[in-house]
Amino acid sequence: MNLENIRVVLIETSHPGNIGATARAMKNMGLKELVLVNPKYFPHDNATERAGGADDILANALIVDDLKTAIADCELVMGTSARERSLPWPSCDPRQAAEKISPVSHQANVALVFGRERTGLFNEELHVCHWHIIIPTNSEYSSLNLAAAVQVICYELRMTDMITIPLQEQFEWATADEMQAFYCELEKVLTHIKFYKPELPRQLLPRMQRLFNRARLEKNEMTLLRGIFAKILRTTVNY
Amino acid sequence: MNLENIRVVLIETSHPGNIGATARAMKNMGLKELVLVNPKYFPHDNATERAGGADDILANALIVDDLKTAIADCELVMGTSARERSLPWPSCDPRQAAEKISPVSHQANVALVFGRERTGLFNEELHVCHWHIIIPTNSEYSSLNLAAAVQVICYELRMTDMITIPLQEQFEWATADEMQAFYCELEKVLTHIKFYKPELPRQLLPRMQRLFNRARLEKNEMTLLRGIFAKILRTTVNY
Repeated sequence: MNLENIRVVLIETSHPGNIGATARAMKNMGLKELVLVNPKYFPHDNATERAGGADDILANALIVDDLKTAIADCELVMGTSARERSLPWPSCDPRQAAEKISPVSHQANVALVFGRERTGLFNEELHVCHWHIIIPTNSEYSSLNLAAAVQVICYELRMTDMITIPLQEQFEWATADEMQAFYCELEKVLTHIKFYKPELPRQLLPRMQRLFNRARLEKNEMTLLRGIFAKILRTTVNY
Repeated sequence: MNLENIRVVLIETSHPGNIGATARAMKNMGLKELVLVNPKYFPHDNATERAGGADDILANALIVDDLKTAIADCELVMGTSARERSLPWPSCDPRQAAEKISPVSHQANVALVFGRERTGLFNEELHVCHWHIIIPTNSEYSSLNLAAAVQVICYELRMTDMITIPLQEQFEWATADEMQAFYCELEKVLTHIKFYKPELPRQLLPRMQRLFNRARLEKNEMTLLRGIFAKILRTTVNY
């Protein structure tokens, strides 16, 4: 994924706050290029306020007269739509869209086109698009806020961008060997305080194993627990 | 996924517009239950305006005084965090979070906890959580708008809802309330045997919290562990 080659196009946005929130959503996810087709009010204080620290994206936003100009140099155009249209079009969810965009973005410009707050994209605008992205929603209440839709799609782009980067393991886990030694000590302590009675085992030891195996013990945690065991052994009266 | 068992908890929200936008994001994705911990302004016109058609969620929102009350009956608590903390906690991205939440949501309440606009969740709030959800962002501009974060996570819940088949849960898990009582007893025991010294805490209690939250305690396991604690208290010399 090359996020810098992916542009967000907003068509005839009514609420400047949505333009600001779009800029913020884009910058959070690593996108930079915003194109506004006939915004109703722009620049505007509400846009700047909702943009937070993404005012650079607003400052660099390009304002144009029509969609054709906004997407002229793009090889892949994805439109957003709240529902299936009368003329069915190739459509996908945001995750599938990110998968389609990823290879293209390395060598060409890609446009994500978002329609008006109330009426979305018109049919002739939708027909310019290669794909329609449909964000899955509650069928009883499906109208997503404009900037929320931008956020979801940009998030999927970033997720797809990251999938190749392995998640870093932050813990050092105990080995099976160490776990074995740990359970021996646990048994010793439980026997010592007479909570565990070998003649009446009640599955106590397997239950403890199930619990600590489920957690997976970090080496540091095991050291702490063994410290607690030692302390109990030293302080109990073995009556 | 049972979206109706998943609650969104917003802590000390400053901007009522964010509460409204949260309600809209929730309803779009099929969630219903909103709990507000000490909101600065609520109800408020900005909340109603940004909620759009999700004003029913605002009307039914529960307002409480502290996080403890908000999550008392939840068996799985996921906190949102913008970064790794000094004491690393089990963390996951929103997609992994949705996978973890899905099976639990069929039989128990789940809480998604979101912090303050500027300062997020405090450490003691993060330590109550089983997992921290970290939304991947641009490292140069990582502060997501509150409602945008809610939108992304609720979207992932819906996506997972569309893909997964419920797993049969075979355990009865402890609630957050019960876990709280458990940690109080653990602290008492560790103090009693002088392993824990309040003047030199060394993050011992959060480490224990992290371990047992990660495992998730079954009610039976908790009973066993509390039995062990009681036995230790009875058999140790408080020198």
